[in-house]
Amino acid sequence: MSLVVVGSVAYDGVETPHGRVERMLGGACTYVSLAASYATSVKIVAVVGEDFRAEDIDFLASRRIDLEGLERIPGKTFYWSGVYSQDMNDRTTTRTDLNVFADFRPKLPEHYRREPYLLLGNIQPALQREVWQQMDGVRLAGGDTMNYWIESYREELLETIRDWDFLLINDSEARQLSGQHNLRRAAEVIMAMGPRILVVKRGEYGAVLFSRHGYFSVPGYLIESVVDPTGAGDSFAGGFIGYLAEQGVDPRAGEIDPKLLRNAVVYGSVMGSFCCERFGVDRFRTLTRAEIDGRFQEFKAITEF
Amino acid sequence: MSLVVVGSVAYDGVETPHGRVERMLGGACTYVSLAASYATSVKIVAVVGEDFRAEDIDFLASRRIDLEGLERIPGKTFYWSGVYSQDMNDRTTTRTDLNVFADFRPKLPEHYRREPYLLLGNIQPALQREVWQQMDGVRLAGGDTMNYWIESYREELLETIRDWDFLLINDSEARQLSGQHNLRRAAEVIMAMGPRILVVKRGEYGAVLFSRHGYFSVPGYLIESVVDPTGAGDSFAGGFIGYLAEQGVDPRAGEIDPKLLRNAVVYGSVMGSFCCERFGVDRFRTLTRAEIDGRFQEFKAITEF
Repeated sequence: MSLVVVGSVAYDGVETPHGRVERMLGGACTYVSLAASYATSVKIVAVVGEDFRAEDIDFLASRRIDLEGLERIPGKTFYWSGVYSQDMNDRTTTRTDLNVFADFRPKLPEHYRREPYLLLGNIQPALQREVWQQMDGVRLAGGDTMNYWIESYREELLETIRDWDFLLINDSEARQLSGQHNLRRAAEVIMAMGPRILVVKRGEYGAVLFSRHGYFSVPGYLIESVVDPTGAGDSFAGGFIGYLAEQGVDPRAGEIDPKLLRNAVVYGSVMGSFCCERFGVDRFRTLTRAEIDGRFQEFKAITEF
Repeated sequence: MSLVVVGSVAYDGVETPHGRVERMLGGACTYVSLAASYATSVKIVAVVGEDFRAEDIDFLASRRIDLEGLERIPGKTFYWSGVYSQDMNDRTTTRTDLNVFADFRPKLPEHYRREPYLLLGNIQPALQREVWQQMDGVRLAGGDTMNYWIESYREELLETIRDWDFLLINDSEARQLSGQHNLRRAAEVIMAMGPRILVVKRGEYGAVLFSRHGYFSVPGYLIESVVDPTGAGDSFAGGFIGYLAEQGVDPRAGEIDPKLLRNAVVYGSVMGSFCCERFGVDRFRTLTRAEIDGRFQEFKAITEF
């Protein structure tokens, strides 16, 4: 039983106060998959160009990620670059070359279709919907979106998320999508759009889970040294759904145990926090499950009273 | 055994997206005292002008606050006014008339001096120090400061906080005081300045406690409707020290139980959250101890996993 992840696989150029990397493995699908791979087997659906490096394939494969759905076509891999502000709370995009990603039409290999878990990374809502429709009896599906789709593809987006079990977005997206500034009211509006579970990511300040059982809030982990926040939100998503997949949750068979949902949000926070400790995906080259479980316990220790 | 609170008693004019009040009771000393009064007896040291209203005296007295140290002198009471942004995360000061507060020299009535708890609101550091020196055998002392003192009265401030048990400031003040952006490193630097306990207030995102035992983080309570955030930080301070006073902590007799410190931070958060629900101090006109303890339990419920 695996998790299917759809989204971008990219090369990123990043500059933070800690340094600069010209071209490193990135993309939402990459971060989600790597983070989830510690808890469940992962199958990805994405597209790369001819320049995609063998070492990056090897790294993903070393995390036992199924790459059959990773299409390789003529052209160049999606490239993004950005510069973070001194406090890392803002970033400026310096370049976006969609390249082969511009015409991405996700194609699910036959053996992906019966998998029970689906994470739809931030791509055009109609494509997210197409993938969801290709799945046959998915148990738990959800994903991410962004301000651009909320603003310019609103109807498409609403049609798409109507079928999702969960939506993972940040504060400002939640406010934009709902038209409500107050987060509680924003959550009520969004949950009425379809997803019964809403996770609002608040960066260094943590995350809030909303469901029928009210809300659960986890503060941010204070990282000793934030080297590069790129991918932290996607790593959160991977940790979140990875844990739920590992637990074998099945909302079709009855409501998800609220305790599991809370743990999933904490595992998401754990993975997001590790991601920031090195440039790009580098932390996932050495990270172990023992470290992950250790930090989960640390979250308990720093929040208990 | 009481808590002595020193700071401003003022009239505030406030405009938020929820409305506008021209002249309401305010000031750090007022909020701290009201919030603390649910847990301990409070004695205040402050100054007001001839315009200070009898009804405001009556209200403070109704909360059993000792007003012997509230000086009333010729002139007008400190007046501040400000306008909050739509999201209430920013405010612009529209007027500051120090009036009688300009020459405030705190004078402690004789029977205040032997009280064991002291909260120094945000005033000039040298005055905070003078008050601390007037106290005879204080057990637990600490307080607040602000960017202006950190920048322009740094040496005075360092001399003042050297003797404090705790310091309560916000993120940006902690970074400014320490010269460190990373909050963990900022806390290490500040704790080396004297206060063994540091509480960093993060507004709607909660608060972080630092001590020899590492850190404790509590997320913000999601308020149904934020009417006016004025005084929330001072209400936090009142809830924090009020709880510690109620518990009779005495750091001279040995380290404070880390569990009590965590509870104090949560009680601070509880009082800060209530404060925002109405304009100015209005929430404290109806708030009950049962509601406070109820919200403390709610904090447990929204953070437990």
